[in-house]
Amino acid sequence: MAYDGVETPHGKVDRMLGGAATYIGLAASYFTPVKIVAVVGDDFAGEDVALLAAKGIDLEGLERVPGKTFFWEGKYSADMNDRETLRTDLNVFADFQPKLPVSYRAAPYLLLGNIQPALQRDVRAQMHGLQLAGGDTMNYWIRDYRAELLETIRDWDFLLINDSEARMLSGEHNLRRAAARILDMGPRTLVVKRGEYGAILFANGCHFIAPGYLLDDVFDPTGAGDCFAGGFIGYLAERGVDLRGGAVGIEDWRRAVIYGSVMGSFCCEQFGVDRFRTLTREEVEKRYREFKACTDF
Amino acid sequence: MAYDGVETPHGKVDRMLGGAATYIGLAASYFTPVKIVAVVGDDFAGEDVALLAAKGIDLEGLERVPGKTFFWEGKYSADMNDRETLRTDLNVFADFQPKLPVSYRAAPYLLLGNIQPALQRDVRAQMHGLQLAGGDTMNYWIRDYRAELLETIRDWDFLLINDSEARMLSGEHNLRRAAARILDMGPRTLVVKRGEYGAILFANGCHFIAPGYLLDDVFDPTGAGDCFAGGFIGYLAERGVDLRGGAVGIEDWRRAVIYGSVMGSFCCEQFGVDRFRTLTREEVEKRYREFKACTDF
Repeated sequence: MAYDGVETPHGKVDRMLGGAATYIGLAASYFTPVKIVAVVGDDFAGEDVALLAAKGIDLEGLERVPGKTFFWEGKYSADMNDRETLRTDLNVFADFQPKLPVSYRAAPYLLLGNIQPALQRDVRAQMHGLQLAGGDTMNYWIRDYRAELLETIRDWDFLLINDSEARMLSGEHNLRRAAARILDMGPRTLVVKRGEYGAILFANGCHFIAPGYLLDDVFDPTGAGDCFAGGFIGYLAERGVDLRGGAVGIEDWRRAVIYGSVMGSFCCEQFGVDRFRTLTREEVEKRYREFKACTDF
Repeated sequence: MAYDGVETPHGKVDRMLGGAATYIGLAASYFTPVKIVAVVGDDFAGEDVALLAAKGIDLEGLERVPGKTFFWEGKYSADMNDRETLRTDLNVFADFQPKLPVSYRAAPYLLLGNIQPALQRDVRAQMHGLQLAGGDTMNYWIRDYRAELLETIRDWDFLLINDSEARMLSGEHNLRRAAARILDMGPRTLVVKRGEYGAILFANGCHFIAPGYLLDDVFDPTGAGDCFAGGFIGYLAERGVDLRGGAVGIEDWRRAVIYGSVMGSFCCEQFGVDRFRTLTREEVEKRYREFKACTDF
């Protein structure tokens, strides 16, 4: 969990609630009860705790330690497809060793946000009875922690990464070939996120291509990929899929991708997490239907 | 019609058949009888005429004049999303004034390839009884021939352009707003092509988003946009749609976009027009079904 400073062509916010756990948790909370594991400093605001609590998110695993919360500052290009990181202060995040409360350890679904692969592996090792587990990573771990990352994702049921990360991880430019290589590394399902252009899921020997939802306005793309992850795992949890008890049907994977896209699209409509302050499940369902109406042929 | 020299990461061809009319005509010929209007020089090869004739393409409107055929040379970047033009020799194309054979003038469908807008307007003016007419343009005409272009597209039923051209023409970055502006300029339907990411159609007050077909290998993207146009108009012609006699159903527009994408995807599988030497309508239908299978949810 983090505080972010973000500038986009639509405006600038110096400090607002952010972080992968925040976005994933908020998005998933529309589908299923969520338990968050994260660390914040003593500057973490009561109103931010209140927002998460209001969504029914279990915060027993939210560690508070002396010091400052992780801070990230970035600025988006005019077309929002690029962003420049202006500042990253790890703060209390630097020494984070996630410890799962006992009450978390039997949860059936696990989404590992982007963090050092060894920590992702440690978290997974603390859990028993998982029906579906997977997560995200980023270029930094792919480049500089490759062996540790490969060791970590080997056991994942799904890996969610963006297209440039998929190319970097596989060494293949073509996405079909990149996906085949990555699936050979262990994950049974791969979702390649393509930002405004949607996502492609590779599973069960075939693939599903979802275009991006076409927004009237993209205010702030920060967190959209994490909201995709939250919608994806949230929907699968709501459906009660169980990869241990057999394969997940391709239809469920596909709908999970669309719900992920839907949650990512809402995220972009306002700065930071603001859209989730008012968003309702009814709006989520309406956009899902709109998605279908705009893509069916 | 042209000769092209093309270099991609997969290889290099010094001189091969190309040009918008060639690609559009070849792609459309899988759906409907095609009549081509174009100019070539006295260097135009008999085997290239034979390829077009073998597809049943009417070449009465193919003008042959002394001199050399238009020549274009380009080189693609490693990811194929950018290309650099190394050489453009207009040759006989410089003085081209398209004249339609009498036998062409009552054709019900017209696809105007990318050329100076005034010439596109002249061609349209030579026709009577059109049921559906539209075409393509490019950044050069948008920037330097804006008034002439606006005068030309005002009467078109559809405009096919890529995303950067849509932004340039409308002055809007957001594609939904860009589309609304462009539809106000006259065209009743707009198709925004997005290369490997597919296309979006705006018509009848709503939009349709089609992702790109995921190819195992992109050998040479030259002509893919024109093949999209050929598949698009070809399918609508085969269906016998008549915009004069009433609106075209949204289902037909949508399927036309998919057939366009299908033809564009085949185009990329080999250098230049080579894929069309062997491609069958059965393969086209198979890929259309595959497209549906990969996008349905």
